[in-house]
Amino acid sequence: MRLLALDTATRHATVALLDGEALREREREVTTHSEGLLSLVDELLAEAGLAVAALDAIVCGLGPGSFTGLRIGLATAKGLCLAARRPLVGLSSLQPLAAAVAEAFPREQRLCCAVLDARRGEVFVARYRDGSALEPERLCRPETLAAELAAETEPILLAGDGALLYRELLARGPASLAPEGCHPIHARYLAHAARARVEAGSFDELASLVPRYLRASDARLPEVPLWRD
Amino acid sequence: MRLLALDTATRHATVALLDGEALREREREVTTHSEGLLSLVDELLAEAGLAVAALDAIVCGLGPGSFTGLRIGLATAKGLCLAARRPLVGLSSLQPLAAAVAEAFPREQRLCCAVLDARRGEVFVARYRDGSALEPERLCRPETLAAELAAETEPILLAGDGALLYRELLARGPASLAPEGCHPIHARYLAHAARARVEAGSFDELASLVPRYLRASDARLPEVPLWRD
Repeated sequence: MRLLALDTATRHATVALLDGEALREREREVTTHSEGLLSLVDELLAEAGLAVAALDAIVCGLGPGSFTGLRIGLATAKGLCLAARRPLVGLSSLQPLAAAVAEAFPREQRLCCAVLDARRGEVFVARYRDGSALEPERLCRPETLAAELAAETEPILLAGDGALLYRELLARGPASLAPEGCHPIHARYLAHAARARVEAGSFDELASLVPRYLRASDARLPEVPLWRD
Repeated sequence: MRLLALDTATRHATVALLDGEALREREREVTTHSEGLLSLVDELLAEAGLAVAALDAIVCGLGPGSFTGLRIGLATAKGLCLAARRPLVGLSSLQPLAAAVAEAFPREQRLCCAVLDARRGEVFVARYRDGSALEPERLCRPETLAAELAAETEPILLAGDGALLYRELLARGPASLAPEGCHPIHARYLAHAARARVEAGSFDELASLVPRYLRASDARLPEVPLWRD
């Protein structure tokens, strides 16, 4: 199976190419995703000697995360899919964080809370056990999350840029920071997670797929998404 | 020559397919460009029975205009180009407005001011004669533009959503509104304008092409472009 996966939910642009068991990954810290993303995709494909048309599918992180970043990532993925007539799979951008934690602690069934910075003093969060979601993704204040974490009855590992940003508030009592490599989103986990859906032929409709933003303003103020300034 | 052109600088998503002399165009008012753009592209190509790989180039309006809209449009165009290994031409999103005015008044060498709403009480503007730019695109307050227009020594036609929005302020003295069909951006003018560059093989570097935003904040606050919320 050949999959190209990408995520632009955070400042950490990540692209992975899975070709059977062979995995290549390119990552870069960016200020905007306008410049960097295509280069990463291009480099990976060139290195592997693969055309987009040779892929079984393209996998895209849908968020939650950066409003503009997610839209650029998804638009890029859609463009690639349409031009090469390849199917698209959209997945959560929080799950790859939990997958990294699960990989770091194999066979331990650890509880993990994926936390991304949502700006405006908020975070996107969801809890996972061994990489599987225990609840829907949601938006909350870090203080609220801190109170919930303090009430956990077993150790819980925090992963994501939001966990790093609010570490002093969140990493207390049962909650502690996951190992260093678990905080950026790595596209390889999106590629792995998409395999079952690609095998089942369960793809997303190109035209209707939109990023997950979780903020009510998205729905209430139709002029905001296009401009945001 | 076969060209696909698209523009997402405003709420008016527009896509055109030029195949020799045959022109097809699809346009839609949108609240975000996440959903609509790919459908328009897909419909046009399907109707013409063309694959992206059969195009000589893809042409994309670079703005100035909607921050997120432009990024979605350019990311889509880049994705299409990369997957089908086709070249990209980036052009001004104001020029198509002037081209529409030039077409409405053939052989009259009319002066035109293209005006797009830039939000925050500002407009993106540039003046044209017979479709050719007389000055670089710039960002200004409509009151400033009104004073400049009042000082024009010949009639000048105003085109664009900013001209409509600020019509009471701007359409006075030598300045008047262009005919109705001149206010939305039409991608067919981008396709026409790109012909010479495609013939000359003058293409843009896929990885380095970015939208034109004209706001200083873009450069001063590196975290703003990714988030804007």
